[in-house]
Amino acid sequence: MTEVRTLIVVRHGQSEWNEKNLFTGWVDVELTEQGRAEGKRAGVLMREAGLAPEILYTSLLTRAIDTANLALKEAGRAWIDAKRTWRLNERHYGALQGKDKAQIRDEFGEEQFMTWRRSYDTPPPPLDDDSEWSQADDVRYAGHDIPRTECLKDVLERFLPYWESDIVPDLRSGRTVLIAAHGNSLRALVKHLDGISDDDISGLNIPTGIPLVYRLDAETLRPTEPAAYLDPAAAAAGAAAVASQGK
Amino acid sequence: MTEVRTLIVVRHGQSEWNEKNLFTGWVDVELTEQGRAEGKRAGVLMREAGLAPEILYTSLLTRAIDTANLALKEAGRAWIDAKRTWRLNERHYGALQGKDKAQIRDEFGEEQFMTWRRSYDTPPPPLDDDSEWSQADDVRYAGHDIPRTECLKDVLERFLPYWESDIVPDLRSGRTVLIAAHGNSLRALVKHLDGISDDDISGLNIPTGIPLVYRLDAETLRPTEPAAYLDPAAAAAGAAAVASQGK
Repeated sequence: MTEVRTLIVVRHGQSEWNEKNLFTGWVDVELTEQGRAEGKRAGVLMREAGLAPEILYTSLLTRAIDTANLALKEAGRAWIDAKRTWRLNERHYGALQGKDKAQIRDEFGEEQFMTWRRSYDTPPPPLDDDSEWSQADDVRYAGHDIPRTECLKDVLERFLPYWESDIVPDLRSGRTVLIAAHGNSLRALVKHLDGISDDDISGLNIPTGIPLVYRLDAETLRPTEPAAYLDPAAAAAGAAAVASQGK
Repeated sequence: MTEVRTLIVVRHGQSEWNEKNLFTGWVDVELTEQGRAEGKRAGVLMREAGLAPEILYTSLLTRAIDTANLALKEAGRAWIDAKRTWRLNERHYGALQGKDKAQIRDEFGEEQFMTWRRSYDTPPPPLDDDSEWSQADDVRYAGHDIPRTECLKDVLERFLPYWESDIVPDLRSGRTVLIAAHGNSLRALVKHLDGISDDDISGLNIPTGIPLVYRLDAETLRPTEPAAYLDPAAAAAGAAAVASQGK
């Protein structure tokens, strides 16, 4: 019989800038009350599904960290170790960080807007280090060669080394892993695990606050069955809402 | 010039059972609103002192975990890794867990009460595994040979191996370490670091929610100066309040 490993991924709940419809990227905004409620609900869903994460991975961004803390507390698992890395951060949105999505769409047109949002390999213009939305002087990234803009391909390329060096060994050792991260860092992971093509990934949207559960072959770490959201109806509605942002 | 390492320790804020004056030990109670405020204030004190923890250690108990989360968020350091261990748990109070401190004092007398609370090497009677306050079936301790009662000597003996195996290497590598734990696990640590005798440790009380800062010689990990509370006046008042519990 194939041994199976469990990987749970969850996108942070609504943030202050999701609510305002701004490009966020690496800007470290807080969850809204709705976002905090989403975090708690993610924990209830895990508990009800009998899922017991044994180690937590998050980005270095508050909205992912708080979502995980709220979820794990509800799930009765706040006591697991937590490892955090900038390699799970949201895609760096370059010069778009801090800009209104609808305004960018009006100013640059639907095609350019969708290219920046969903093209696999076209990053937005880079963010100046002296921008108020730059992370160039943020102490949490000191000593790391951090990006000034990214496309999804860049996110995948900076995430994969960490996946291999840290997360894969935990999965191989039999630990159930929870990753709390962002729309685009999780799209990169899903692309990798499900073998989604560069073209098809543009149509994939990840809803906030609903755990997505992978069962992975213990040897190959390939999915033994399609990944499943713990609340499929809410996940479908949430993904549709993400797809329509800026409209 | 001697290189110095920084270790910050903080006792969790007021818990529901501190407020009710019950022996708590390993029973996993929540912080009160006052306790949450103490956690936040600990973070403000660290931030104002320019202290920047680079890794967090906690027990497996919610009140220490939440205190640390609240403090680190206020200090702008929620993004550091967190390692958790039962070896930082509060002293297991054996059959006293769940009992009212004043009632135990009235029933058994001042001498027996103080022996159970402050004797270095006399544990209370063990807790039955079928007690409602037992942790024998708690999944977070699965696979560990956990105690059913402890004296402070027992706490020191189960904490020291972890100190040596995990925390010391972090300090040696130059990382600033924050430990969020409990009255007695921190008394054990302070006894070890300050070389306090078995007799004298009974008079040492640690206040809740006020960071205590050690500067340690990088080679020997002995204090280069006396450890200092970030708010000495509040710490003195808090220690006096702990000493008078059950009276």
